[in-house]
Amino acid sequence: MEKSVNIVLLGCGTVGTQVARLLQEQADLLAARVGARLELTKIVVKDLNIPRDAVIDTQLLTTDISGLFADTDIVIELIGGIEPARSYVRQALMAGCAVVTGNKALLATHGAELYELARQYDVELYYEAAVAGAVPIVRGIRESLAGDKINSVLGIMNGTTNFILDEMTTKGMDFAQALKLAQDLGYAEADPTADVEGLDAGAKIAILASLAFHARVGLADVAVEGISNISATDIAMAQKAGYVIKLIATARRYELQRDGKAGISVAVSPTLVAKANPLAQVTGSFNSVMVEAEAADRLVFSGRGAGGAPTASAVLSDVVAVARKRVAGDCAAQEIIYGNLPILPASEFISSYFIKVLTLDTTDITTQITTVFTDNEVALATVKTGRDGVCEANEIVFITSPTSKANLDRVLACLQEVPEVVEIIKVMKVEGK
Amino acid sequence: MEKSVNIVLLGCGTVGTQVARLLQEQADLLAARVGARLELTKIVVKDLNIPRDAVIDTQLLTTDISGLFADTDIVIELIGGIEPARSYVRQALMAGCAVVTGNKALLATHGAELYELARQYDVELYYEAAVAGAVPIVRGIRESLAGDKINSVLGIMNGTTNFILDEMTTKGMDFAQALKLAQDLGYAEADPTADVEGLDAGAKIAILASLAFHARVGLADVAVEGISNISATDIAMAQKAGYVIKLIATARRYELQRDGKAGISVAVSPTLVAKANPLAQVTGSFNSVMVEAEAADRLVFSGRGAGGAPTASAVLSDVVAVARKRVAGDCAAQEIIYGNLPILPASEFISSYFIKVLTLDTTDITTQITTVFTDNEVALATVKTGRDGVCEANEIVFITSPTSKANLDRVLACLQEVPEVVEIIKVMKVEGK
Repeated sequence: MEKSVNIVLLGCGTVGTQVARLLQEQADLLAARVGARLELTKIVVKDLNIPRDAVIDTQLLTTDISGLFADTDIVIELIGGIEPARSYVRQALMAGCAVVTGNKALLATHGAELYELARQYDVELYYEAAVAGAVPIVRGIRESLAGDKINSVLGIMNGTTNFILDEMTTKGMDFAQALKLAQDLGYAEADPTADVEGLDAGAKIAILASLAFHARVGLADVAVEGISNISATDIAMAQKAGYVIKLIATARRYELQRDGKAGISVAVSPTLVAKANPLAQVTGSFNSVMVEAEAADRLVFSGRGAGGAPTASAVLSDVVAVARKRVAGDCAAQEIIYGNLPILPASEFISSYFIKVLTLDTTDITTQITTVFTDNEVALATVKTGRDGVCEANEIVFITSPTSKANLDRVLACLQEVPEVVEIIKVMKVEGK
Repeated sequence: MEKSVNIVLLGCGTVGTQVARLLQEQADLLAARVGARLELTKIVVKDLNIPRDAVIDTQLLTTDISGLFADTDIVIELIGGIEPARSYVRQALMAGCAVVTGNKALLATHGAELYELARQYDVELYYEAAVAGAVPIVRGIRESLAGDKINSVLGIMNGTTNFILDEMTTKGMDFAQALKLAQDLGYAEADPTADVEGLDAGAKIAILASLAFHARVGLADVAVEGISNISATDIAMAQKAGYVIKLIATARRYELQRDGKAGISVAVSPTLVAKANPLAQVTGSFNSVMVEAEAADRLVFSGRGAGGAPTASAVLSDVVAVARKRVAGDCAAQEIIYGNLPILPASEFISSYFIKVLTLDTTDITTQITTVFTDNEVALATVKTGRDGVCEANEIVFITSPTSKANLDRVLACLQEVPEVVEIIKVMKVEGK
């Protein structure tokens, strides 16, 4: 074994440090798998003077990328954010290097440009670590379902919000308390917006939707709603009704009969998940992604969605795949974009919905209100009143069969016209088992 | 796109029919993914006169394989059993065809010979469908964890026994009733031995152990125990204690401190699984495999473990992978066997154990008996008596910390010498959360 595969690492934070550690500690094992030694030749950092973990060979550190990519086979980008990550990745691809990245924000905003560049220079751009940490969902969609037709991808892709909802569910905390706890434990950042408002999950589902449906989906195409409006009351009520509230990211392919429309719809929103659904069992900072395909039916992939070592494991799986190809002779796997499915407007997103209304009194107005649903062609799966113990005496809970957001909005508008309806208290998506 | 990839299908049962259907119905989609059309040129069957599904082009049927492999790129083997599957696969590999198989029995008994043949002729031998149907666990281990070090693989790999145990758990049936139901519903065969006695799960875990630990593990190396001795009482007691009984197949890498031994241990046995463990949630005919790796931590892969369409999806994922390589230029991925870990004797299998003993009376003999454990260096995690509601008044339940089977056997031998112990009623493995 004389060949070696030269690797440059961009970024030396939590994940970068673990990647450097694994490259060093598992060097023999990796060499056996690849058929050549993996040589970490440089680590590009912003500041040479920051203290580093003992595992980092400080001789490898540099702040200067000029000329660095010429003798390099694989560039691992773990800087995060848009710049300088984007221009470094562009330069690497143009220099003929394969790129392995864990940067979801970059892919969700500039993916199209980068995939195209990779295609043009005939090099790999791999990103298993960009979605759901160690969970091998990118490879699962790209390879394990390569002979199947995917209908939907949905799941829990943000550990911070899952931890917060979990604490609210199991300990009765309200959102602010649970967020504070997550921050104290280091699970949530000082500015938690990206996690809490669903943007992080939105970037991930955009990447998975692109892959599953062979289309270009960016963060801007995702209808995003976060969890900051979820109250302890919502959680308690969901539990009584047999559900758990989770922040679910969803991408679906629709073939609508009505007016011939077909396409993809992608959204992130707090969702009532039936307790018997595998996603309801996912606790703490774990991620879990469910794929529904025509032949395979339902597959579920679960694991650690974040953390240095788990994410580094995903990075290395890509490094090994790319390195094997380099050693065996180059045959780059390209992103294949042949689907021409349009991305549907949010109004076409189809889901079951939970609707809680406050009514004037506790008399039998249920029938009057239900006609609003049938008039708008929305079927009802469940109707519960205070007598069922799910809500207060002067409240009614409706769970609809799957319907479009447009139909739902019409129902909500009509409900507000019904004299007996004081207020629509809550509207949320529902996932059955 | 002018190139085509020629495929011969061996066997046209439930899975074979679905493979033929998908090749036909998804032809354009598959061509886009592969970069060439997949042409099903022949289907080899035992009997031309059996009625076939309408999707099967009867013009393609033949009973004769002679000369068939010369112009063939990929042979899909879905005959099952050892012969003629083994000799057909040998001939295909020697003719330079890639082979995709779903035949776990063949791989678990003749895998070493076939992998070696594939290496020798520089062709692919892929088998995603051989383990856990649509669950992409082979690719998960081979590729997604290629940069990591796997410590254990364990899970539910037989849907029939999972269904039976499920019925026993949720409906209080005894084993015979639940087996009868499974047979009536077509989930269990008339001769259910392979499923019920753990041989099917044993073949699958042998294949996964080979892959995860880069070693040669066959069915003969697996300590197999089935579920026919599990009673409704066992199930009820497990539930009271916070566990669910599952048939768990396990492969672990051990690095024993004691006497410097290291190696792999592989077993199938009914196991008490803590309710909080993801495997406890797997119901019906679903399969679920948990992999624990050094960096990735715990990953779980779940999905349909059997059935025509789900298994066909797994077959096609392999077909697409192999076909892409053929189109891009040949770079076969070989099985890599570089681990030289010995397979440990069953006495070295390490687990926590549940032990229920019948005692002479209900007085305080717990302490007397516990010294048997400590004398044999087995730590106790839990001790429960009839007062805890887990067992009868004159019974004691012990759950040990992880220990070797050899230590356990010493404890059991000593327990039988204790005058107050009437009988050791039950011994089972335990998986925590």
